[in-house]
Amino acid sequence: MLIVHVQIRVKPECVEAFKAATLANASASLKEPGIARFDFCQRSDDPTRFVLVEAYRTEEAPAAHKQTAHYAAWRKVADPMMAETRSGVWMKSLYPEDAGW
Amino acid sequence: MLIVHVQIRVKPECVEAFKAATLANASASLKEPGIARFDFCQRSDDPTRFVLVEAYRTEEAPAAHKQTAHYAAWRKVADPMMAETRSGVWMKSLYPEDAGW
Repeated sequence: MLIVHVQIRVKPECVEAFKAATLANASASLKEPGIARFDFCQRSDDPTRFVLVEAYRTEEAPAAHKQTAHYAAWRKVADPMMAETRSGVWMKSLYPEDAGW
Repeated sequence: MLIVHVQIRVKPECVEAFKAATLANASASLKEPGIARFDFCQRSDDPTRFVLVEAYRTEEAPAAHKQTAHYAAWRKVADPMMAETRSGVWMKSLYPEDAGW
């Protein structure tokens, strides 16, 4: 399982619209066969900061995700809401094993 | 669902021992009634860096976790392996809803 944590900060006036757009993208993404989880969290210390936790079942799955209509729609709406360039950190899962994702 | 992401960097010579100790803690922690997930990931860009993703079902669950024997055992073994003070960021889950954790 390949994991990416994406750190996002949005403009304060965009928080609610960003949440709506990202909820739609998360629920559609979770239906992709290559995606095991697509968690969307809001930081407690700063409501303009969010983290996406994306868990991919294969090395091909991240590229497949970026080909989807829901990803394109999210990018079009969400990109102008960002207060800074978002950043992702890739990891491999040590626990749980793949069946636990 | 309350989520914490804990960023950890260990001394290079401690990587394998840290993995073993943390795998034991993760599997024991996941059996706690207040814990929904306890993911343990290793960064792809730096094998001395790890992230714990802990998902708690209640506000009381984090304190209950710190009372367990497996947490105490992990702290005793893992603390000397850290290359810097570990840091945690608390979040609330927006997606999935609690049943999806």
